[in-house]
Amino acid sequence: MKQPESILKLINRFRSLPGVGAKTAQRYAYAVIEMSEADAVGFADDIKNVKETVKLCKLCGNFTEHDTCEICSLRDTSVICVVAQPKDVVAMERIGGYKGVYHVLHGTLSPLDGRGPDQLNIKSLLGRLDGVKEVIMATNPDIEGEATAVYLSRLIKPMGIKVTRLAQGISMGSDIEYADEVTLSKAFEARTDI
Amino acid sequence: MKQPESILKLINRFRSLPGVGAKTAQRYAYAVIEMSEADAVGFADDIKNVKETVKLCKLCGNFTEHDTCEICSLRDTSVICVVAQPKDVVAMERIGGYKGVYHVLHGTLSPLDGRGPDQLNIKSLLGRLDGVKEVIMATNPDIEGEATAVYLSRLIKPMGIKVTRLAQGISMGSDIEYADEVTLSKAFEARTDI
Repeated sequence: MKQPESILKLINRFRSLPGVGAKTAQRYAYAVIEMSEADAVGFADDIKNVKETVKLCKLCGNFTEHDTCEICSLRDTSVICVVAQPKDVVAMERIGGYKGVYHVLHGTLSPLDGRGPDQLNIKSLLGRLDGVKEVIMATNPDIEGEATAVYLSRLIKPMGIKVTRLAQGISMGSDIEYADEVTLSKAFEARTDI
Repeated sequence: MKQPESILKLINRFRSLPGVGAKTAQRYAYAVIEMSEADAVGFADDIKNVKETVKLCKLCGNFTEHDTCEICSLRDTSVICVVAQPKDVVAMERIGGYKGVYHVLHGTLSPLDGRGPDQLNIKSLLGRLDGVKEVIMATNPDIEGEATAVYLSRLIKPMGIKVTRLAQGISMGSDIEYADEVTLSKAFEARTDI
């Protein structure tokens, strides 16, 4: 027998979140039903509120509640770390030591999906390179990420700016036995003295 | 650097859902930010709506939008399947063949956590046993679930009603090599002819 319509609707909403299947969505929906009235209303309000208050930083394209984000306002603008998505900024900030700013492309080049340079937040990157000493490419180490890094490097290097990218190799805590060939061969080529 | 307040708030809301850790909550919150305005508002409305419209069926205690649920209204009330939580009804309904009704206890007996019979939806179960031929205990095969099943069985059997419980054994598709001893010994004891 079908579940009540309002529950099915909420299950479908949860299914639209990344990586959420039917059973997980069901579990979330039931958890909402069992929340206190205040918590559920707060949850709904927080969803609406985030859409109303969060916009893109006009300098770097990251999420912010102001015109420019905290990072662009307060940090060293002579080093720019280029990432594909806002979530990558969160990951980079977790390492704690980076003092420069970011630039969020909101995607990577993908000719097959019709995403060329004009669909990405690239123009504003080129417009903020005055006085920049280094641009760090922190796109994913996959085909699209690599292509994007190489494309931007070719645009930026001729301006006399240093362009670097994150080192590739085996992950900490991973097992050489299970490392894929590409990762292992890159780690072998880039081996360092100890 | 900290993320905008409204994003942190939403991340915390998602963390209150079962099984959601910091990274997953972050991922969900960012997905909401990237939803269309209409989808986000719809999501918020569906959360509020489910709290407003869903209540407990006055017969079985399952979630419903009416006074009594569809299952209690339409199906064979001479067989009652007793489950701990509304989500267990969904799991049982997936098998498709069951024609009887349910009774949702909203918990299991747990003296250590202070959950005795009075905290569970037991009184209304005893009040609907007139004309019932069989009560099927479908609580989890763990200590609390077993204790609850045995407790109810001792209350109900003396009324001349058949009380059964779900068979225990090795799961379909599981591996005998990895089955725990209790499961394997229960499956051995309850072995059947082929």
